[in-house]
Amino acid sequence: MSPGGTGPTTLAQLGEFALIAELVRDLPEADDVVVGPGDDGAVLTGDGSVVVSTDVLVEGVHFRRDWSSPTEIGRKAVAVNVADVEAMGARPQGVVVGFSAPGDTEVRWALDLAAGLRAECATAGVSLLGGDTTRGRDVTLSVTALGTMDGRAPVRRSGARPGDVLAVRGRLGWAAAGLLVLGRGFRSPRAVVEVQRVPQVPYGQGAVAARAGATSMIDVSDGLLADLGHVARASGVTVDVRTEALEIPEPLQTVGAATGVDPLLLVLTGGEDHALVATFPDGRLPAGWTAIGAVHAATDDAPGVLVDGAPFAGVPGFDHFRPGARR
Amino acid sequence: MSPGGTGPTTLAQLGEFALIAELVRDLPEADDVVVGPGDDGAVLTGDGSVVVSTDVLVEGVHFRRDWSSPTEIGRKAVAVNVADVEAMGARPQGVVVGFSAPGDTEVRWALDLAAGLRAECATAGVSLLGGDTTRGRDVTLSVTALGTMDGRAPVRRSGARPGDVLAVRGRLGWAAAGLLVLGRGFRSPRAVVEVQRVPQVPYGQGAVAARAGATSMIDVSDGLLADLGHVARASGVTVDVRTEALEIPEPLQTVGAATGVDPLLLVLTGGEDHALVATFPDGRLPAGWTAIGAVHAATDDAPGVLVDGAPFAGVPGFDHFRPGARR
Repeated sequence: MSPGGTGPTTLAQLGEFALIAELVRDLPEADDVVVGPGDDGAVLTGDGSVVVSTDVLVEGVHFRRDWSSPTEIGRKAVAVNVADVEAMGARPQGVVVGFSAPGDTEVRWALDLAAGLRAECATAGVSLLGGDTTRGRDVTLSVTALGTMDGRAPVRRSGARPGDVLAVRGRLGWAAAGLLVLGRGFRSPRAVVEVQRVPQVPYGQGAVAARAGATSMIDVSDGLLADLGHVARASGVTVDVRTEALEIPEPLQTVGAATGVDPLLLVLTGGEDHALVATFPDGRLPAGWTAIGAVHAATDDAPGVLVDGAPFAGVPGFDHFRPGARR
Repeated sequence: MSPGGTGPTTLAQLGEFALIAELVRDLPEADDVVVGPGDDGAVLTGDGSVVVSTDVLVEGVHFRRDWSSPTEIGRKAVAVNVADVEAMGARPQGVVVGFSAPGDTEVRWALDLAAGLRAECATAGVSLLGGDTTRGRDVTLSVTALGTMDGRAPVRRSGARPGDVLAVRGRLGWAAAGLLVLGRGFRSPRAVVEVQRVPQVPYGQGAVAARAGATSMIDVSDGLLADLGHVARASGVTVDVRTEALEIPEPLQTVGAATGVDPLLLVLTGGEDHALVATFPDGRLPAGWTAIGAVHAATDDAPGVLVDGAPFAGVPGFDHFRPGARR
């Protein structure tokens, strides 16, 4: 196959098996991969406990081909999913990818997407273990990430206890700020647009938090308050976010000034950054994590999230099936 | 929620989180599930080696809503994927499911699909570990199945050796016969239509074959000859199928007589049955498996598949990106 030459230019011309051959060519294999792509299934070794998480990304819902390059879309698909494995306190090991696209999709586009999958796998330190490709009207990527606990107990959403410190590692509000400016036809500030296209997951920090004794953890996919709501309800506690501890970085201030949207709102409710938020026993915060609040006994037996001690008035996050909630 | 009453009738009305709550309600959890649905990832225990496989099923490509009930579609999605884990010689343990559908999809339809997922998980002896739901134009199901080797070595496609016996466990040609009659507007013979809607995977037989010393194994998804082609090339051998050993069951004879299609062709090239075919050292065939051929040294150094000692003239299987190859 010669994508730049006279070879097939669409997936329909190339065919499924030639596409797969291209996708798995020269894949690096880590030591923990017993069987890589090309068989009925891949085989990984670990400590006996495997963490698995899956995410589906659909064109027009999670990405737009006119807003993101295929490489960026591939990177994002891996990043958002590996972040879930990180959020269990595991060490991510590998991903499998389901890919569907119309037959008239350009081969070049699909190969660039695959390059993005590989690039983010390398960044995350995981192996691309295999996948499935098929025809569909939407371009859809479904990524399943696997990891191992390395002998640790999983860090669940349900373990936060009164007296714990709430802390974050990673960016908050950047992806939402990027979405906001892209939606208004701008491509800057470049920093937030880039994070919207490819989140900067704090790889390796899930295991760091677990080793430090994190009592609960989640990655911020729907928005800080929405995701903390999951933790609060699962743990039966009140989580109080202290806004004075939340940094409003310069690019978010710029977006706020340009759009009239309060940048604090982006930090509190913006999704898709895939920062890790965790609760730690007092004094156990790992280096590089920022304390942003505290865990209290549930107020009036109603677990939930407070902002500076008071209920939050706005909408804490997104819902994929509600029309208009997203682009 | 009251699907039969005055509750929301579409996914857009119900919303993503209420849908997920319905989908995971009262899920049974096997002993090897450490963390089930509802967290960032699920956690499974095993022997340290995990087998993973993923499949994407798209409406109009792999199923039609006017040909299959939602329950059948859910069952098929689990079956085809667990079959891959079986084909590695593993014991299947669990699945995660990615689901996308238009917002106007009926809640009832989605819940029936989920009931099918659960039913086939129960039949296969695996746990539904979690998933992701989102909006999309196509109804798309991406299932990732996990299993454990229980201390055995994986049975790969590459291990067939000259002198081995080729054997099958499960049905061949039934799903293709079902597709043929459905495509002509008929709903009978009922037996083949049912297998097209939900393949009858020989659950547990992958591990049986592995324990018996199978040298290679694959599940028949694209067609017997096409899939044996993968085995032959990976193993560097010639696989010779003996047609006199292939049973032509009565429903396939009926379809053959009604359509004019040679039922042997359905057996040799029909996909989607997800029978297991494996090679065994002579004399090691497990009970219930049928010998259907032999493995020879590669003819003229060109590994491949022969039918009764001669090359096969037809098209050995399907390609998802080629237009017209399937419904």
